Amino acid sequence: MTDISIDGARLIGRIRELGNLGRDGDGRLARLAASDADKLGRDLFVSWLRPAGLDVAVDRIGNIFGIWEPPGSAGKLPLMMGSHIDTVTNAGIYDGCYGVIAALEVIEAMQEQGFVPSRPVVVAAFTNEEGVRFAPDMMGSLVYSGGMDTDAALATVGTDGALLGDELRRIDFAGPEEPGFLKPAAYVELHVEQGPVLEREGIDIGAVENLQGISWQKITIDGIANHAGTTPITMRSDAGYGAARIVTYLRERALASTSPMVATVGCIEFEPNAINVIPSRATLTIDLRHPVEDWLLEEERALSEFLSRLAAEEGLTISTERLARSAPVVFDQGIVAVIEDAAKKRGLSYRRMTSGAGHDAQMIATIAPTAMIFVPSVAGISHNPAELTRDIDLIAGANLLLDVACVLAKS
Amino acid sequence: MTDISIDGARLIGRIRELGNLGRDGDGRLARLAASDADKLGRDLFVSWLRPAGLDVAVDRIGNIFGIWEPPGSAGKLPLMMGSHIDTVTNAGIYDGCYGVIAALEVIEAMQEQGFVPSRPVVVAAFTNEEGVRFAPDMMGSLVYSGGMDTDAALATVGTDGALLGDELRRIDFAGPEEPGFLKPAAYVELHVEQGPVLEREGIDIGAVENLQGISWQKITIDGIANHAGTTPITMRSDAGYGAARIVTYLRERALASTSPMVATVGCIEFEPNAINVIPSRATLTIDLRHPVEDWLLEEERALSEFLSRLAAEEGLTISTERLARSAPVVFDQGIVAVIEDAAKKRGLSYRRMTSGAGHDAQMIATIAPTAMIFVPSVAGISHNPAELTRDIDLIAGANLLLDVACVLAKS
Repeated sequence: MTDISIDGARLIGRIRELGNLGRDGDGRLARLAASDADKLGRDLFVSWLRPAGLDVAVDRIGNIFGIWEPPGSAGKLPLMMGSHIDTVTNAGIYDGCYGVIAALEVIEAMQEQGFVPSRPVVVAAFTNEEGVRFAPDMMGSLVYSGGMDTDAALATVGTDGALLGDELRRIDFAGPEEPGFLKPAAYVELHVEQGPVLEREGIDIGAVENLQGISWQKITIDGIANHAGTTPITMRSDAGYGAARIVTYLRERALASTSPMVATVGCIEFEPNAINVIPSRATLTIDLRHPVEDWLLEEERALSEFLSRLAAEEGLTISTERLARSAPVVFDQGIVAVIEDAAKKRGLSYRRMTSGAGHDAQMIATIAPTAMIFVPSVAGISHNPAELTRDIDLIAGANLLLDVACVLAKS
Repeated sequence: MTDISIDGARLIGRIRELGNLGRDGDGRLARLAASDADKLGRDLFVSWLRPAGLDVAVDRIGNIFGIWEPPGSAGKLPLMMGSHIDTVTNAGIYDGCYGVIAALEVIEAMQEQGFVPSRPVVVAAFTNEEGVRFAPDMMGSLVYSGGMDTDAALATVGTDGALLGDELRRIDFAGPEEPGFLKPAAYVELHVEQGPVLEREGIDIGAVENLQGISWQKITIDGIANHAGTTPITMRSDAGYGAARIVTYLRERALASTSPMVATVGCIEFEPNAINVIPSRATLTIDLRHPVEDWLLEEERALSEFLSRLAAEEGLTISTERLARSAPVVFDQGIVAVIEDAAKKRGLSYRRMTSGAGHDAQMIATIAPTAMIFVPSVAGISHNPAELTRDIDLIAGANLLLDVACVLAKS
């Protein structure tokens, strides 16, 4: 462990400077991928890379890399750190940006304080992590790791009808490099937790050892519309009641589980949606997450069985549609151990944890040893202007990333 | 009991003839109150009254009366029978129209078969029972029974911006009579059940002894929007879960009740309604009905208590807004007994029952002894083109109304 440190004031200043770009007249932040606002953020980021002496590379999907090749490191696989700088609509300033700016800060701290890594060190800002304008999300890292064809991704049509490829050319970030051109020796992503666990437990650092698998389903329940006054309770096929039973079932399953399973019904709709008519149809979405694939499969199976029972008991027809499914990702246990070790040496409290959200790290994990570091999010709020991580935690997390990078860049 | 009978073919023919008026290009039936289509129906109805030798009277709110004053009945309070001939949008042909046409049929059967009542007999068609274009519903009978000022009702603005008073003048049904000008000795309304009970139980006739009180509330549940992946189940304030618990609570209450309580959640909405965001707000409507006021009050109280408990347990804020409230109506036990007796003599199976829907009879019950007769609705379907009562049931119900009228018109 070296005893160098990042420049906390510069780190915080840059996060705020980037966070001021892309605001509308009401002050709302939105830097949707490949928009004019995204270009403002990208240009600012690149403007920081060059003075740090980094080679700037942009690939065909618009991922930006700042590459430091210290003397003697040529030919070695680089250590890569990064995240994304696109945002959702009405966003906070930390999600993604923190990881990118902290990675740059790590490189500059190494340079300024005379730490010479034995392999190249790279800061990466991946395109379109949020997926608000162009689907799917985490697109830049997905393409980079070979999970999606570059040309197919460039042909994606945005919610505003624009083609991603056209938009990247328009904002001057359609680069020449082939995605995947730099294969990392290791990848570390520092990120705000976007959840309440670290804050509630009073812990400084999350050593993220895995990332939940996600199962998204749309459930359609068909019952019979009838008069709310004239139809006795026992003679109803109430699609809305079926929907409610699914919500309470999921809660009971999650509470009874000894594992960090989460389940959410975020969307719901009744038809005809009239105060005095028993719903003939209810549609709802289920977001089911588990860090272990076998358990996630078991939850999906149990849900399916419950739906069959519910349909039979209530005289309903229930159909399901898979909207999305990703397997859990297990991060590199070696890097997680380096994170824990570094946290201990910095005097930071830490715990192993699961990422409940998706991150670029899950894509890069398919091509390189990968792990993530979380810092606390106040009240767990994210994707919201109230998103906040305290400066002291931002600085501690960046210093931890520096320590981890020093280990990984020497190995 | 006399042994006269109504003309079944004429009854059915008139129901179908009236049901063919007011259809759009796609065949959908809609005779909204005081519309051109309503005028078509009204004109047809009046065209049947005059040949039957009835005096036609129209009051200021547009209620139509066909009055038969047999010799020697002058000065006596009339027996009134009736219902309404306006419809909902995309309606069936039986709701309301059956009761009006059957009442006319009863009068004609009396006249044609030499039954001489000792008091006037009146068929009434009340304005705007459905309340689709002008609120409130049951307006004509409400005004007639003194529950709403006539001029206030005429000043009602429709969903299309039209004034009811203007529209009644336009279609030539703003009559000179003051609402309430005929105080009935008794009122009987024959109606399709609009519910599944008679059909499911294989019973011919419902002797309707009361009408449910209705409590409509809008519930707003505020929780905290958080990330569906990163927020452990135990750290959530999930407004959607709160909504589901209300739905299942109401079902449990209704099933546990020894009384014919019904409760329905017909409308629901989540915010932000995103698949991966825990709902920050859920709004839903509750339609709670009970035939006994004290029990309805008790259900409202128990619900309110449950909502307080739920809010505390789940960290939610729950507010309620009363949308509508009507007390139960108890019909005249003497007339109900006449209905039962007449059914027995006709060899029809019957049961006492509660009306789950609102009807003009509940308004007239405030000024005269009143009861209703229900006939089975196939599958309980109503307010729908699939609304159906079998011809044999329509004829049996009209004959029963005739028998009941013969008793009441002689008393």
